Amino acid sequence: MTTSQDPAGLRAAAVAAAVSGALQGDPDLRLTGIAPLDRAGPSDLTFLASVKYAKHFATCHAGAVLVTPELAATEGPCAVRIVVSKPHEAMLTLIPRFYRAPERPFVGVHPTAIVADDAQVDADVCIEAFAVIGRGARVGGGCWIGAHTVIGDGAQIGAQTRLYAQVTLYPGAIVGDRCAIHAGARIGSDGFGYVFNEGAHQKIPHVGGCRIGNDVEIGANTTIDRGSIDHTVIGDGTKIDNLVHIGHNVRVGRLCLIAAQVGIAGSVRVEDGVVMAGQVGIAGHHTLGARSTLTAQAGVVSDVPPGETWGGFPARPHRQMLRGQAALSKLPDLLRKIEQLLKREGDA
Amino acid sequence: MTTSQDPAGLRAAAVAAAVSGALQGDPDLRLTGIAPLDRAGPSDLTFLASVKYAKHFATCHAGAVLVTPELAATEGPCAVRIVVSKPHEAMLTLIPRFYRAPERPFVGVHPTAIVADDAQVDADVCIEAFAVIGRGARVGGGCWIGAHTVIGDGAQIGAQTRLYAQVTLYPGAIVGDRCAIHAGARIGSDGFGYVFNEGAHQKIPHVGGCRIGNDVEIGANTTIDRGSIDHTVIGDGTKIDNLVHIGHNVRVGRLCLIAAQVGIAGSVRVEDGVVMAGQVGIAGHHTLGARSTLTAQAGVVSDVPPGETWGGFPARPHRQMLRGQAALSKLPDLLRKIEQLLKREGDA
Amino acid sequence: MTTSQDPAGLRAAAVAAAVSGALQGDPDLRLTGIAPLDRAGPSDLTFLASVKYAKHFATCHAGAVLVTPELAATEGPCAVRIVVSKPHEAMLTLIPRFYRAPERPFVGVHPTAIVADDAQVDADVCIEAFAVIGRGARVGGGCWIGAHTVIGDGAQIGAQTRLYAQVTLYPGAIVGDRCAIHAGARIGSDGFGYVFNEGAHQKIPHVGGCRIGNDVEIGANTTIDRGSIDHTVIGDGTKIDNLVHIGHNVRVGRLCLIAAQVGIAGSVRVEDGVVMAGQVGIAGHHTLGARSTLTAQAGVVSDVPPGETWGGFPARPHRQMLRGQAALSKLPDLLRKIEQLLKREGDA
Repeated sequence: MTTSQDPAGLRAAAVAAAVSGALQGDPDLRLTGIAPLDRAGPSDLTFLASVKYAKHFATCHAGAVLVTPELAATEGPCAVRIVVSKPHEAMLTLIPRFYRAPERPFVGVHPTAIVADDAQVDADVCIEAFAVIGRGARVGGGCWIGAHTVIGDGAQIGAQTRLYAQVTLYPGAIVGDRCAIHAGARIGSDGFGYVFNEGAHQKIPHVGGCRIGNDVEIGANTTIDRGSIDHTVIGDGTKIDNLVHIGHNVRVGRLCLIAAQVGIAGSVRVEDGVVMAGQVGIAGHHTLGARSTLTAQAGVVSDVPPGETWGGFPARPHRQMLRGQAALSKLPDLLRKIEQLLKREGDA
Repeated sequence: MTTSQDPAGLRAAAVAAAVSGALQGDPDLRLTGIAPLDRAGPSDLTFLASVKYAKHFATCHAGAVLVTPELAATEGPCAVRIVVSKPHEAMLTLIPRFYRAPERPFVGVHPTAIVADDAQVDADVCIEAFAVIGRGARVGGGCWIGAHTVIGDGAQIGAQTRLYAQVTLYPGAIVGDRCAIHAGARIGSDGFGYVFNEGAHQKIPHVGGCRIGNDVEIGANTTIDRGSIDHTVIGDGTKIDNLVHIGHNVRVGRLCLIAAQVGIAGSVRVEDGVVMAGQVGIAGHHTLGARSTLTAQAGVVSDVPPGETWGGFPARPHRQMLRGQAALSKLPDLLRKIEQLLKREGDA
Repeated sequence: MTTSQDPAGLRAAAVAAAVSGALQGDPDLRLTGIAPLDRAGPSDLTFLASVKYAKHFATCHAGAVLVTPELAATEGPCAVRIVVSKPHEAMLTLIPRFYRAPERPFVGVHPTAIVADDAQVDADVCIEAFAVIGRGARVGGGCWIGAHTVIGDGAQIGAQTRLYAQVTLYPGAIVGDRCAIHAGARIGSDGFGYVFNEGAHQKIPHVGGCRIGNDVEIGANTTIDRGSIDHTVIGDGTKIDNLVHIGHNVRVGRLCLIAAQVGIAGSVRVEDGVVMAGQVGIAGHHTLGARSTLTAQAGVVSDVPPGETWGGFPARPHRQMLRGQAALSKLPDLLRKIEQLLKREGDA
C-alpha cells in the first residue's frame, strides 16, 4: 500500500454518518479497512451493489457492508449493514477516512541529491536520493521530488506538487501547484518538427515552453513536448493517464480527462472538459469543442463540435458510427442478394 | 551482445545430435556462433528453410547450415549440412548452447546504491549503481537489480528475478521468482480513477496492490497500475512486451502473450493463455476467455469467448471481420450500380 | 527555453537579407526574438501568412512581421514589414539566428558519474551527474550524456551525439554521429520472442545487436529492440518521435519520418524516405517501399509499394480507403432502400 491505515479505525456508526446511510447492527463495531467481498475480514468494510454478487455475499465475513435498500436483506454472515443508494460511490468517498495519504519521508534534501547553487528551492520540500535540480530552477513549498528525478535548468514547480521517481522536467518547463507527475513522465521534450532541405530532414529548434497548470495529474511514462515558438499548455484540473503523447503547440483546456495511450498531434486545441477514452488519436491542428467526448480508439481527423460524442475512424458522431457498424455487419449477406438482383437486372 | 560466446564452440556432430538432425560432411568442424545467411562465416552455423533464399545460399560461406530435406542439396560452398524438418526452430533451440546468458557483474551492493536499514535483501544479489531499495522492501536470492532502479517501500521481489536499469517498483508492489522487468517499466503506479465532485475531478486514492507472478517478463517502458481497492494481478508465465498499459484492477491469467503497445482498461479479466497482437485495446470490465486471440489493432468492446480469434473495431470473430472487410472493398462499385438500379425502380 | 537569446539581436535589414525578403520600414530596428502574433512585443519578429489572422494583426505590437505580398498592406501598428512568399518557412529558418543551441554545461565527467576503467571516452565530452558508462563502452568526441543515462557494456556512441537524461543504451548497442536520443528512450532491449515448449513460453535469447546510424533522432520514451540473431537497424537521417516501438530484426532505411506511438513489429523492412503518421501499426515481416506514406492509425498487414500513400485498417491505397469510407457513410440509408427493393423482388 502506498498509504497507511489507522489501527484504531472507525466505528460503524461514524461510517454510516459519513455517508448518510441507515445503520443496521452494532454501532460500535471497529472497522479498520476496506476490501472487496471475496477478501473482506471481520474488521473490513465491504460493499454490495448488484444481485450478481449475492452468492459471494453469502460466504463473506466482512465486519460491515455498504448495501442498497433492495439488497439490504441478502442472506449472509455479515451482521452490520449500512444502507445507501450507491454503495460503490459511498465506498470511494470513505477511502480517505481509512487510508492516510503517504507522508513525505523527511523534509530536506537527500545528501546524494544535487541542487544547483542558484536554484530557488523552498525549505519545506522533500528532495529524494539522486534527484538533480538545475540552474535557476524553482521548487515551491510542500513539494515532494522522487528519487532520480531531473528538474532542468530554469524549470519551475509550484507548491504542494509531487513528482514521483525518474521524471524528467526539461529545461524551462513550468508546472503549477498541487500537481502529481508519475514515474518516467517527460515534460518539455522537443517537438517533432523538421523541414526537408538539402537532402535531409533539418531539425526545427523548439524554443517554446511547456506550461502545466494547477491540480494536473500526469501518468507514468507520458510525454508532453514543448512548443516550437509558442507554448504547449495543459489547463488546470486536467488529468492525464499513462503512456499518453501530447505534441508541440497543443493547448489542452481545464478539467479534461485523457485516458491511457492517447496521442494528440501538434497544434491541436482541446477545450475545457473534454473526455478522451483509451488509444484515441487526434490529427494535428484540429479543435475539440468543450465537453466533447471521444470513444476508445477514435481517430479524429476533423474538428469535433462542443458537447458531442464522436468515435471510430475517421471519427464521426457516435450514433452515426454505430449505424455504420450495424450496416457493415449486415453487408456480406446483403451483398450476395444484391449481386443476384443485379445479375437478374442485367447489370453484372 | 548481452551474452558471450564460448571460444571453443561446438562440434558439428554435437550440434546435429542436439537437434536430432542428419549430418552431412565433417563431424569435427568447430562452430562458435550463429548468423543469418548473408553474414555467416566459416565458424558460424546458419539456416536455410525457404527456396526464397536459395540464391543467398549460393554465396554463403557459413561453416554449417541447418536445412530442410527438400533444400539439402542446394548449390553452395557450405559443406557441412544438418538436415532437420524445421531449421528456424532448431536454430532457436541452439542459441543457448552457443551463447551464455550474461552473468551478474558482481555479488553484493554497489557502494553508491542505497538500501534502507530494514530492507531484507538476500546476500546473493547484485544491486547496481544508484539503485534505491526502500524501507521494508524485500529482495530474494539470485536477483539482479539494474542501475538507478527504484524499489519502493514495502515492495517485494522473489528469487532469481532481474530488474534492468531505471525501473520503478512503486511501494508495496510484489514481483515473483524468475521474472525479468525491462528498463523504464513502472509497476504499481496509481490507477486512473476520479469522481467529479464540487466542480473538479477528485482523485480516488489507489490503495490496492500490484501482484506480478513467477516467470513473468515485462517489456521496456510498460506501465502496470495498482488496484483501487483490490489488486492488479499478472499470472505466472505471462509475457508482456514494450509500451503496454495495464490499468487498475485488471487480472491477467497465466501464460498470456501481450504484444507491444496493447492497452487494457480497468477491471478487465484476461483468462489463461490469451494472445494479444500489437496495439490491441480492451475496454474496461470485459472478459477475454481462455486461449482467445486478438489480432493486431483489435478494439474489444465486449466479452470474447474462450478459444476464439477476434479482430477489428469493434472486435468480432476474425472470420466475420474478414468478410466485412471484403464486402467493404467491393462496396464503392456496387453502390454505383445499386444507385442506378434504385433510380430505375423509382426509389431515388 | 532550452536555448538562449543574443541580447543584441539582429537588425531588421539583416533579417530581410537572410530570407531574401523586401523590407519596408526602419532597417535598423533591433529584433531579439520570435513570437506568435498574439504575444509579440516591440523587439520581436512575428509572421502573418493567412487572412484568417488579419484581425489579430490589427492589435499586434510586434517590432517587425514576415508577411506575404497579398497581406503586406494589412492594417496594424507593426511598422516594419518583411515581404516573403512563405512567412512561416522564413520564420523557421530564422530561429537558429535568434536562438543559440544550448551549450554543454562543462567539458568532462561529473564527479558522481561512473565510467568503467576500460571504457574509451573521448576527452571532449560532457558526462552529467549519475551517468553510468559500462565496461568496454565507447563515447566519441563532442558528445553530451545526460544525467542518469546508462550506457551498457560494449555500447558505442559516435561523435557529436547527445543523449538526454535517463536514457538506457543496452549492452552492445551502437549509435552513430550527430544523433539525439531523448529522455527515457530504451535502445537494445530484448525482442519479444518465445517458443512454446513443455507447457511454457520459453524465452529466445536475443543475441543480435541494435545499430542506430548517423543523424538519427529518437524521441522520449521510445523503445527499439535488439535483434534475435541479426541486428535491428535504423538508417542515417531517420527521425523517430516519442513512444514509438520498433521490434526485433526491423530494418529502417535512411531519411524516414516516424511519428509518435507508431508500432513496427519484428522483421519489417522499411525502405528509404518512408513517412508514418501517428499511431500507425505495421504487422511483422512486411516491406514498406521507398518513399511510401502511411496515414494516421493505419494498420499495415501487407507490403506497401514504393511511393504510394496507404491508410486505414487493413491499410490499402489512400484513395480506396476514402472511397470505402464514403460508401460506408452512405450505407445505412441505402441499406434501407435495398431491403425494400429486395422485398419487392421477393428475395427477402
